[in-house]
Amino acid sequence: MKPFKRLLRHIGVIPDGNRRWALAQGLQKQDGYQHGVGPGLDLYKTCLELGVEEMTFYGFTMDNIKRPSIQTRAFKKACVDSVEALKDWDADLLVIENTKSKVFPEELKPYITRTCFGEGKMKVNFLVNYGWEWDLNQAFQKADEQITGSMIDHIASKDISRMELIIRWGGRRRLSGFLPVQSVYSDFYIVDQTWPDYHKNHLYQALEWYQEQDVTLGG
Amino acid sequence: MKPFKRLLRHIGVIPDGNRRWALAQGLQKQDGYQHGVGPGLDLYKTCLELGVEEMTFYGFTMDNIKRPSIQTRAFKKACVDSVEALKDWDADLLVIENTKSKVFPEELKPYITRTCFGEGKMKVNFLVNYGWEWDLNQAFQKADEQITGSMIDHIASKDISRMELIIRWGGRRRLSGFLPVQSVYSDFYIVDQTWPDYHKNHLYQALEWYQEQDVTLGG
Repeated sequence: MKPFKRLLRHIGVIPDGNRRWALAQGLQKQDGYQHGVGPGLDLYKTCLELGVEEMTFYGFTMDNIKRPSIQTRAFKKACVDSVEALKDWDADLLVIENTKSKVFPEELKPYITRTCFGEGKMKVNFLVNYGWEWDLNQAFQKADEQITGSMIDHIASKDISRMELIIRWGGRRRLSGFLPVQSVYSDFYIVDQTWPDYHKNHLYQALEWYQEQDVTLGG
Repeated sequence: MKPFKRLLRHIGVIPDGNRRWALAQGLQKQDGYQHGVGPGLDLYKTCLELGVEEMTFYGFTMDNIKRPSIQTRAFKKACVDSVEALKDWDADLLVIENTKSKVFPEELKPYITRTCFGEGKMKVNFLVNYGWEWDLNQAFQKADEQITGSMIDHIASKDISRMELIIRWGGRRRLSGFLPVQSVYSDFYIVDQTWPDYHKNHLYQALEWYQEQDVTLGG
């Protein structure tokens, strides 16, 4: 990764605060999501330039779909648009999702197996209708098969690698169910600004902060 | 919980920075751990007064035991002493551990089933020779039994409830493998001071900060 000394392979992104941003603009809550699509592509492109090898975006969750339908329609559309936008930018794309639910957007079904666009320069994982307990339980559901190794090789998100850094926008200091296995050793960086107010300086500040952290992997 | 408005049932504690503290005092790294025993009891007693119902302390992990033996002996002793100290203070004590390992301290074996001391006013969980992957894999190992429900009902730490707040001392902003299932919705509060420099104001500041957070449980 240039121009940063310390190698960072995989960044997780929690793009939170879309509804708060909308209210602050005098808009309706659901209007915030669409303003998060552009920032997602901007962030991806900057990470691509820096040589980041993998990114995971926290789209929406099985918890989120309990919200009013006007909101769920809005964030589903924003997710679909975000994924579609990546197709023009050399993403090696994987959507992790609970497809058994009716909530899962049909448009994203082609990407539940990893799909390479253009030169496929970066692995990009998008969590859509994701649930942490569902993720873990996929390993458990295979209990009647011959299983070897660790359960982490059998969870729904097994193709997503460990994240070195998680950046969360919108000021909250928690994971909210974001990939419990891949986040065990991740450093957390919190951006107080809400996601639609993304600026590339947020990323640079996170990466500069990360340079000063040690990596122990629990040791 | 008094005098705080917002109910907080369960606090997780990551008492990090013992070795850095020792070096800063001109001591050897391993000398720091014993200076963390007193702070643990102080923190527990203050939480007890406040009416906190459950606390979980991150003792040491299966990753940690890769360290030099002079250090592993020191943190094992500090863990044993910390647990023993709680016996005089109405703790309802549970030690979660990988007992199959030779590293597990014999002195703590009586507490691998929950043991009530005095009036048993607070559930206190102590993670000793803990590993997040080991924890999750315990559910998986039972694959040949008749299993119902979710895997989280079968992990090694199934008797530990979800944590609302995790306080980490020593400035690092990560979980380091601390209870991946129980931390999915936890708010994280970081204290920059290292653990042996614990002061009850750290706890009060964390609780005051927590009052301002919303609870969505991912919704």
